[in-house]
Amino acid sequence: MSCTKRLACGAARKNRSINYTDLEHWIGIAKLLEAGCFDAVFLADVVGTYDAYRGSRDASAVAAAQFPVNDPMLLIPAMAAAAHHLGFGFTSSIIQCHPFMFSRLITTLDHLTKGRVAWNIVTSYLESMGRSFGMPGIPEHDVRYEMADEYCKLCYQLWENSWSDDAVVRDYQRGMYADPAKIRDVNHDGKYYKLNGCHLSEPSPQRTPLLFQAGASPRGTAFGAEHAECVFCVSSKPAGAGKYLADIHQAMQAFGRKPDDVLGFAYLKVITGGTESEAQRKYDKYSEQVDYEGALSLLSGWSGIDFSTYSPDQEIEFIQTNAVRTILTSFSPDNPRGKWTMRDLARRIAIGGAGPVLVGAPEQIADRLETWIDAGVDGFNLSYSTLPGSFEDFIAGVVPVLQQRGRMQSEYRAGSLREKLFPGRAARLATPHPAALARTPW
Amino acid sequence: MSCTKRLACGAARKNRSINYTDLEHWIGIAKLLEAGCFDAVFLADVVGTYDAYRGSRDASAVAAAQFPVNDPMLLIPAMAAAAHHLGFGFTSSIIQCHPFMFSRLITTLDHLTKGRVAWNIVTSYLESMGRSFGMPGIPEHDVRYEMADEYCKLCYQLWENSWSDDAVVRDYQRGMYADPAKIRDVNHDGKYYKLNGCHLSEPSPQRTPLLFQAGASPRGTAFGAEHAECVFCVSSKPAGAGKYLADIHQAMQAFGRKPDDVLGFAYLKVITGGTESEAQRKYDKYSEQVDYEGALSLLSGWSGIDFSTYSPDQEIEFIQTNAVRTILTSFSPDNPRGKWTMRDLARRIAIGGAGPVLVGAPEQIADRLETWIDAGVDGFNLSYSTLPGSFEDFIAGVVPVLQQRGRMQSEYRAGSLREKLFPGRAARLATPHPAALARTPW
Repeated sequence: MSCTKRLACGAARKNRSINYTDLEHWIGIAKLLEAGCFDAVFLADVVGTYDAYRGSRDASAVAAAQFPVNDPMLLIPAMAAAAHHLGFGFTSSIIQCHPFMFSRLITTLDHLTKGRVAWNIVTSYLESMGRSFGMPGIPEHDVRYEMADEYCKLCYQLWENSWSDDAVVRDYQRGMYADPAKIRDVNHDGKYYKLNGCHLSEPSPQRTPLLFQAGASPRGTAFGAEHAECVFCVSSKPAGAGKYLADIHQAMQAFGRKPDDVLGFAYLKVITGGTESEAQRKYDKYSEQVDYEGALSLLSGWSGIDFSTYSPDQEIEFIQTNAVRTILTSFSPDNPRGKWTMRDLARRIAIGGAGPVLVGAPEQIADRLETWIDAGVDGFNLSYSTLPGSFEDFIAGVVPVLQQRGRMQSEYRAGSLREKLFPGRAARLATPHPAALARTPW
Repeated sequence: MSCTKRLACGAARKNRSINYTDLEHWIGIAKLLEAGCFDAVFLADVVGTYDAYRGSRDASAVAAAQFPVNDPMLLIPAMAAAAHHLGFGFTSSIIQCHPFMFSRLITTLDHLTKGRVAWNIVTSYLESMGRSFGMPGIPEHDVRYEMADEYCKLCYQLWENSWSDDAVVRDYQRGMYADPAKIRDVNHDGKYYKLNGCHLSEPSPQRTPLLFQAGASPRGTAFGAEHAECVFCVSSKPAGAGKYLADIHQAMQAFGRKPDDVLGFAYLKVITGGTESEAQRKYDKYSEQVDYEGALSLLSGWSGIDFSTYSPDQEIEFIQTNAVRTILTSFSPDNPRGKWTMRDLARRIAIGGAGPVLVGAPEQIADRLETWIDAGVDGFNLSYSTLPGSFEDFIAGVVPVLQQRGRMQSEYRAGSLREKLFPGRAARLATPHPAALARTPW
């Protein structure tokens, strides 16, 4: 077990109560998280609207359920100027941007952050996204992963194989900025993407950004096993997260990768305060503010099922989809009755999203987080109820306890985000990761 | 004549001598320009490589002639956090990004800058760009402008017509963030672009960014006459810039627009110092550092002609393309001999790019800039020889003289970039601009 466990925070999932269009707001969050020794801030994104519930996006607009949503990438440079160690992860779908454009955006961010950028690779699940880009909808599930595989490997070519390490000479005596013999085209005529040209940016510290992924389906797990350096574990219990990670580790063997080539982050929410009862009061307050339809618009979007057709008192054994089952399992620890209605489900999603909710005093939270660490997870992706309040509470209360117990870093390691998270490794990916395999001799 | 003339600075055109990957470098430039009362910084971009010269990008790599080039958009948030009045213009081609994605990037920037973003609409001229996006090359010239027209009008729909002014209510008592009845889809099945969905971002201060354009061809001028709020005048002499603006004003009539609906910025370079001889010494030093092939790789890219096939001593009367003629005319004021060789041409481009170069003491520079203002231009887009040195020199020497003469602002107006540049107008475009025409009743 590593003595330094990782902490990331998920932000930008809910715009309701925050001034999310204000740069100073985000700069303040970056400073706060860095003061709290968080490894990274994670900026989620959804390029489309949740419109499965009642066949419309109305409930999501009312509840501000991931809508409206600005582009998260643009927050990173301003946050990076104010926080010098924190990492910056963000979501970008393989559907929204051609690899030639996307690869340059990433390299630019990696330059500007001095190697602290991470990409959460997603394949999209909303039909509305496909329509927004002029398609009838989004491609079928496994096709999207096939596209993602081609997309990533094409980006790896641009990041890792277009510029030699010694291409940039900056030799002002000879009048040479870059040696053209050390820059080469990527020529790709693939099933889903075409590209002929060299990478426009010179190499950045990490070249390939730190790669996050969260696939849970068989195809998604296989994709993560090949590409991911960090995975999000969405599970109600430590054992479930441990099982998910064990499955990923197993699947990684097919690609010659080892268990310590990937870090698992459990997605969860912490509600804490000075005492257990203060934390419980916060939980009760959030419970009272639940937007039933907003929560079900998210669940409908994730699952493709229109839950408006069920009564709030309907019991939920009928739900059979994977996406919903994952969430349902997160109910069981807290449920004294054993039976759950649509209303219970909505409340739980409104409070904790797809993950579990931990409520308690700092020592109690630390105890429970330790059970996750002991089950095999390497860190946590914390969601929030209020921004920055949830993180202020966590940093004031829980972080010192975790640090005293040797479960969390008290200062940052030097180097890029990859070097910070994988001590002893280099800024760039090593074989047998496919990004490293993209490199060919000069 | 307006008493407040406009100043913008062109940056990011040359990466050779600067630490362009460093955020602090750009933050420092933003602070400097704001201290100097510049209206805006303009971040150029080229998404492709200059490979017409010798049929390869080699000369541009050696000279760092617009290559390598990072994405300029990502500099804006960090600069905007450090400078609270300066505007931020950047180039984005209609080829690099789907309108659904691009429109959200712009709205995000307009939110984060509190309404200080400008977009320079370009249609691309490099075949290498088309190939990089998997096409055989770029579409034919007039087709690109037809695409640009469709692209812009589709973006206007998203920016101006998808969300009503009263869509965002933030009514926490009623539990309503946005009123879904005030958000509507854009449904577009066009010749070049398809899109079905609502804008993902809530309205930003300007909605449509301030629009720059620089087309000089007949089709380009017509496009600018319909869409541009600011145009770049590339001309060697004040009269040429005045003529270009008069042509734009004439063409604007067809769209019901008036001359004061557009501002003309002359593109030029100033080399100044404490005295005329100090300025001349700087000019001579830059002349000695000219990269012949780097300059001709730019000229070859602009014109499509491979100038490597001509001797450096070849006289240049043979050059017949528009792009080159525009540049050649900028030679004449400084040429005592009347005849120009390829070497002269390369030197001139290396020092001044496509525009004229003004060399002198601050009072002399101010005198010459006044002749441009009196010829009808509204402001200047200043290129640089060293960054930030060229702007430090200009701000220390020329800005106070222009301010004393009432030719330049001494403080910023309140409001968005559009309100700063067009006193008395609103943050949003008014009819008959096509962005305003995109609005339909609710």
